[in-house]
Amino acid sequence: MASDRYFDDFRAGERFESAGLTITESAIIDFALQWDPQPFHIDAEYARTAGDFGGLIASGLHTISATHRLWFADRIFGACAIASPGFDEVRFVRPVRPGDTLRVVTELLELRPSASKPDRGVVKMRHTTLNRRDEVVLTIDARVLLRRRPAAA
Amino acid sequence: MASDRYFDDFRAGERFESAGLTITESAIIDFALQWDPQPFHIDAEYARTAGDFGGLIASGLHTISATHRLWFADRIFGACAIASPGFDEVRFVRPVRPGDTLRVVTELLELRPSASKPDRGVVKMRHTTLNRRDEVVLTIDARVLLRRRPAAA
Repeated sequence: MASDRYFDDFRAGERFESAGLTITESAIIDFALQWDPQPFHIDAEYARTAGDFGGLIASGLHTISATHRLWFADRIFGACAIASPGFDEVRFVRPVRPGDTLRVVTELLELRPSASKPDRGVVKMRHTTLNRRDEVVLTIDARVLLRRRPAAA
Repeated sequence: MASDRYFDDFRAGERFESAGLTITESAIIDFALQWDPQPFHIDAEYARTAGDFGGLIASGLHTISATHRLWFADRIFGACAIASPGFDEVRFVRPVRPGDTLRVVTELLELRPSASKPDRGVVKMRHTTLNRRDEVVLTIDARVLLRRRPAAA
């Protein structure tokens, strides 16, 4: 069931924590084979013997995608998301390895009504993706356009 | 065949243009169903009648992934890529629609040897993803750690 909250119902400082997702070796190789087939993402022997990380690591694109999948699963903006203008300061802080279980903590940083379109506003938020040792593996600052509650428009 | 170029062999201002990739309706729905299942990415009827774009559009995560797939296909950093510290200023400039054929123009903006590790340097580059009407759909500023040519280390 999606949240029925609109732009007007959110506040800066709100935090959300997702469920977990375990990143398997198969998932790392399958994702990378399609989108980012560098040897340290798809060749376990190379990664173990010649790579810089002592073993396979997930593509950063995979970690970004998994982060969003966990965020979208809770449908926080289910009723009101229009689109995203972009991301800033995407940081691949630590490698993600086979078997790591990730979760995402999302904090709303700023909410600003649109100056030109009275039916919407922009939220800026930070996704912080952590492993089971509470180490940060990824941070993303994202902006999303949200619909205002129809009565308030 | 991968390029055998190392950090020392690249210059700021170099530009690379990828081959094309057509983003089908199936690909849009399949990608979004896995990673970004918002209705304007997976429900063609909703997208046509109730969405803001008059039809299905690709997830921004899909466009980012396709952009990298096109970039990696040419294996420009095939011999020397170590990892990426992050992306900045990811901008979803225009929607990507079923049937759009994308290509990526990549420009090297800056190359800086590592201050602490003599075997590597950092390249900053901009990927600009265009459709067949030469409209920009996505820009990404990415940084990548590259190995220096072994003799120069």
